[in-house]
Amino acid sequence: MKVAVLGFGTVGVGVYEMLKNAPGLEAGPVLVRPGKEDADFKVSSMEAILADPSVGAVAEVMGGIEPANTYVSMALGAGRHVVTSNKALVAAHGIELAKLAREKGVSFLFSAACGGGVPFLHNLAIAAQSDRILALGGILNGTTNFMLDAMQSEGKDYGDVLRQAQALGYAEADPTADVSGLDALRKIMLACAVAYDKLPVDGFCLEGIESITAGDVAHFQSRGLTCRLVTSGGEAGESVCAYVEPVLFRASAPECSVLKNFNMAKYLGENAGSIVLMGQGAGRFPTASAVVRDLCGLGTLEMLRPACRKVTADNSACVHAYYVRTDAANAARFSFTESACADSVVRGVTEPMSVPAMHALAEEIRKEGGALFFAAMG
Amino acid sequence: MKVAVLGFGTVGVGVYEMLKNAPGLEAGPVLVRPGKEDADFKVSSMEAILADPSVGAVAEVMGGIEPANTYVSMALGAGRHVVTSNKALVAAHGIELAKLAREKGVSFLFSAACGGGVPFLHNLAIAAQSDRILALGGILNGTTNFMLDAMQSEGKDYGDVLRQAQALGYAEADPTADVSGLDALRKIMLACAVAYDKLPVDGFCLEGIESITAGDVAHFQSRGLTCRLVTSGGEAGESVCAYVEPVLFRASAPECSVLKNFNMAKYLGENAGSIVLMGQGAGRFPTASAVVRDLCGLGTLEMLRPACRKVTADNSACVHAYYVRTDAANAARFSFTESACADSVVRGVTEPMSVPAMHALAEEIRKEGGALFFAAMG
Repeated sequence: MKVAVLGFGTVGVGVYEMLKNAPGLEAGPVLVRPGKEDADFKVSSMEAILADPSVGAVAEVMGGIEPANTYVSMALGAGRHVVTSNKALVAAHGIELAKLAREKGVSFLFSAACGGGVPFLHNLAIAAQSDRILALGGILNGTTNFMLDAMQSEGKDYGDVLRQAQALGYAEADPTADVSGLDALRKIMLACAVAYDKLPVDGFCLEGIESITAGDVAHFQSRGLTCRLVTSGGEAGESVCAYVEPVLFRASAPECSVLKNFNMAKYLGENAGSIVLMGQGAGRFPTASAVVRDLCGLGTLEMLRPACRKVTADNSACVHAYYVRTDAANAARFSFTESACADSVVRGVTEPMSVPAMHALAEEIRKEGGALFFAAMG
Repeated sequence: MKVAVLGFGTVGVGVYEMLKNAPGLEAGPVLVRPGKEDADFKVSSMEAILADPSVGAVAEVMGGIEPANTYVSMALGAGRHVVTSNKALVAAHGIELAKLAREKGVSFLFSAACGGGVPFLHNLAIAAQSDRILALGGILNGTTNFMLDAMQSEGKDYGDVLRQAQALGYAEADPTADVSGLDALRKIMLACAVAYDKLPVDGFCLEGIESITAGDVAHFQSRGLTCRLVTSGGEAGESVCAYVEPVLFRASAPECSVLKNFNMAKYLGENAGSIVLMGQGAGRFPTASAVVRDLCGLGTLEMLRPACRKVTADNSACVHAYYVRTDAANAARFSFTESACADSVVRGVTEPMSVPAMHALAEEIRKEGGALFFAAMG
């Protein structure tokens, strides 16, 4: 089957190369912007691509919501399978696109949009058919994992590792989406939709790693703890929980072996138990491999089913003890089971408290000009 | 689709229960031995099962080669999909059964035969379609992992943890297949067949954990190392490599976070990079979940392709440095880069040497009555 590739950036080039060696698949035309048609296989007309009846599937790896949504809708409407790596597109229009795919009897798959090369959504979609998914999540942002790992292994401070990540191409010039946890949050939205037929669109709790210091990391290390930015989702009555926050793990936790810019995704199945998947969360060929894997598996698998609907996330039943570092003036606002004060900085571990309560208190303290870092005790 | 279940032991009961809740699937008749038909859904005639046209698939979870092979052949011959958890069957007759399945246009899948609840073979089969698998393997035997973890975490000796594993139902009365590494070897045979179209049937190197002592484990712990029984496979020219041996890992390796009776499987894809999967390697519902997952994914996926053929494994190009503990009298037979002698026992690390050379030397020393334990440096 001939596969057209929409976009010829990092991932697009990888997909195009991999299609040359995938049995049963064939690299078709590549859609580029008008004026960029510098080779025979590059075209700038989506209509021309869809006019070729030998194009059976489209790989959308251009990113962004428009014109990706228009092109994907056109492809599905024309009865072509679509595989995409575009998490923004799926979060914004996935439900409608999946319905269109079902109407047309074609597949709409997006493994590469969550976890890069880690085959998370594919396995989650299969597991959700036959098992009850009790919880899901993991380390879904490679940039922040690279930074946290470098802070721990090299003792560097936040600014240094951010510049290092930017120099290596792991972080963008504006790193906000990564370091704020927003990128990871977008991924858990998709995972919840796949596992629960519920796409959370608001009600999230989001804490990134912008407040962490070398002092925090040294403190964790001295206690045998490792900090990771973790994305969590799960059932919550009629809704789902979905939040991102730093978490501290003991050395035996698999999260501690997620080094550099790797990802780790997991789910807890009522029958299967805990299933953990690790791999490269980004990069040309890892991400392309996820796209091509979806293309090889076109068939009956539906990642978003017709029952899928948008919900407001509800994190109120999610409760953790938290490590908190804050100014002495704000320490009394927490109920610590243990704490210590040095140089007007208090570090403590709270009684178990709900995720929204912790995130709201942090926001309040920061609004008032206070400093604070927190991480759930894993 | 109605699914008949062959066998009603630990896994069979799990599959039967799970089928009741799997959308699109329905629990059909269960094949039991004559005289064991103590409920309406239990029958003792394979012919009666296949005479029911509403039975579209068969889950074979009885184990053993016969009568499983006969029944599976009958089911495939009658145009029914077959999913099995039976590694002995697949190793012995998988190639012929897969050919029969292809002839009849049905699926023959066996995810549960390698890694229990860990979706290894499924993902490996998909990856092998579009990527080059450079290496594969992992911790594929939960019994020995439980024992090694207990030796390390509780400081117990081999006999104690074996009795503990038996009391918990993790080890059989005759634990040989597990502790010798044979069970793990059978699993890597299947993984090689799936990844490389080559089923290794001899030429293996096999070292279990029977020679490990509490002293070895204490020695590893003092150096920050963790011992795991690891199964390795990979390309080797016209053949494949396939061997089982203990391996020592540094604390940051994901293998160290595989605790209790969990499994970890991994593969290295030329494009995808390293993909690691962890989960429950055995148990009623984890194993049943792998069977049901395969049943949910019946379609175009082939785990054994027509090109698959039997080969003799070739481990000659696999080279590691080894930790060796042996009697002082045998120490001179190794080329150590470092070693120490205490109470006539030498512990050392060898220069890199080939896997067959290490295994042959160990066999020779033991034949002569010498004591020895070895583990590759991971």
